[in-house]
Amino acid sequence: MSTETTTTPVHDEQRLQAQRERALIDRVIASWAGTSDERLAQILTALTEHLHAFVREVRLTESEWTKGIDFLRAVGDITDDNRQEFILLSDVFGVSMQTVTVANQANGDATESTVFGPFFVDDSPQIEHGGDLSAGASGQPCWIEGTVTDTNGAPVPGARIEIWEADDDGFYDVQYDDDRTAARGHLFADEDGRYRLWGLTPTPYPIPHDGPVGALLAACGRSPMRPAHLHFMVTADGKRTLITHIFVRGGEFTDSDAVFGVKESLIADFAEQTPGTPAPDGRDLTGRNWSRVHFDIVLADDTH
Amino acid sequence: MSTETTTTPVHDEQRLQAQRERALIDRVIASWAGTSDERLAQILTALTEHLHAFVREVRLTESEWTKGIDFLRAVGDITDDNRQEFILLSDVFGVSMQTVTVANQANGDATESTVFGPFFVDDSPQIEHGGDLSAGASGQPCWIEGTVTDTNGAPVPGARIEIWEADDDGFYDVQYDDDRTAARGHLFADEDGRYRLWGLTPTPYPIPHDGPVGALLAACGRSPMRPAHLHFMVTADGKRTLITHIFVRGGEFTDSDAVFGVKESLIADFAEQTPGTPAPDGRDLTGRNWSRVHFDIVLADDTH
Ligand SMILES: [Fe+2]
Ligand SMILES: [Fe+2]
Repeated sequence: MSTETTTTPVHDEQRLQAQRERALIDRVIASWAGTSDERLAQILTALTEHLHAFVREVRLTESEWTKGIDFLRAVGDITDDNRQEFILLSDVFGVSMQTVTVANQANGDATESTVFGPFFVDDSPQIEHGGDLSAGASGQPCWIEGTVTDTNGAPVPGARIEIWEADDDGFYDVQYDDDRTAARGHLFADEDGRYRLWGLTPTPYPIPHDGPVGALLAACGRSPMRPAHLHFMVTADGKRTLITHIFVRGGEFTDSDAVFGVKESLIADFAEQTPGTPAPDGRDLTGRNWSRVHFDIVLADDTH
Repeated sequence: MSTETTTTPVHDEQRLQAQRERALIDRVIASWAGTSDERLAQILTALTEHLHAFVREVRLTESEWTKGIDFLRAVGDITDDNRQEFILLSDVFGVSMQTVTVANQANGDATESTVFGPFFVDDSPQIEHGGDLSAGASGQPCWIEGTVTDTNGAPVPGARIEIWEADDDGFYDVQYDDDRTAARGHLFADEDGRYRLWGLTPTPYPIPHDGPVGALLAACGRSPMRPAHLHFMVTADGKRTLITHIFVRGGEFTDSDAVFGVKESLIADFAEQTPGTPAPDGRDLTGRNWSRVHFDIVLADDTH
């Protein structure tokens, strides 16, 4: 008995089609071969493979491609020095958070990282210990304190602690049309590695959703809300830069963060204080509610 | 004898890291589950998988991510109604060509497709048969003629044939600062499916390379040049829209097209004519060199 191998015209056409698609990928990858920066060549090659795999897998149509191009143009059109829609786009796909996850591998008890977000601004004002970074931004006062140590528990004097946050209308200073600087600042850990300052009790807010990324979330039934958080960036000589948030335990949206930034270890107790409770620094809070949070920061060694 | 299974702390940490990365992807994919448009959900899910696979595979660093974001912003900044850098970006990664390849499967002897390119403009002027689309654009006259048929060889009267091309300085009309319309137009196949008109002998030109995409090509040792070509878009009732080029046999850069658009079946003979050779329509070419090309177009049935 013999076994006959037969191919149908349809099978031949499918094989030819697959060969054409693969041959195109190989031509593109070959075109990156002259890149002098080896790491750039590696990145471009991998990006080529994965972008083409996406197009082939979903059998992307030309009108879908056009919609994608138009979407990217709209993202570009709304982007300026104060609105970075490409970061938002990366955020809502979890790509920012994946980059953070890949780049900050577990290291002893070092504080975990989370997304940077689009609202960091260089040259924030320096705050004294016990000072107030709100600078007129609206919201409930919040006493923020803690210690910066290394993974051996030793204090890190002089560590630069940058904090930024939204006001209780949900806006960062740069989202206002004026040139205000508010609810952002930096200070340096004291000789015992400690820091303390006044900020605002954070509140949930939406990511900017009046642009193309917001329209995408709406089309997908996704909320643009982020759970309440304070942004931290902590730098010190010889230490891995820490970019993270503190989230509010029990706060809304911790399970549905629009940018996938929540980690259990970053959720802290913001203790509500009734009017009249004496402030740690004797500040006169004139009968207002306020809160306090203690957040210790552990910096990994910089291994680079 | 017994076999002991041991795990080291390093292996545990690697496994934990991989689990964290995968868990993040699953959270992002779950977030698209509320998308009412099933096709959109499919596309977003696949895009999520492939973008995250890229980030994980190359172990993308945060500074590389920032460079990527900055690059996309630069692409957006240079883009306007006449300069579509996102299309160029898609082109130089072969993503445009892969989309065209996927969307236009082989179908009998239907003319093959290639990239659309960024220089198409709506509302081009209508040209009479034997008319001239150059409208003052510089270059050598070229007589372009052929027949539009279906895959059974029957003529397709009334097929709309749109042609656009660069002048011999390598620029399309929209790349000039004025409002000129030149070297673009459309005409309709006659009752026998035939078309004929004057255009310009195409010449190689670079894709716009004074922007971020050009800088990328330069960093990778890639030429921005495209081989000489005429753009065609042919539409007819009940037929699949054909977007393609004609390339010049023997022309420079056919093996290194910056946008990967060349296909062997799209290379045609542009026959050089010496001064004094009578033109097909008796036009007085006053001692100039000119060329002629015959390009027959076969339209696939529209299966949608
Ligand atoms: Fe934030
Ligand atoms: Fe072109």
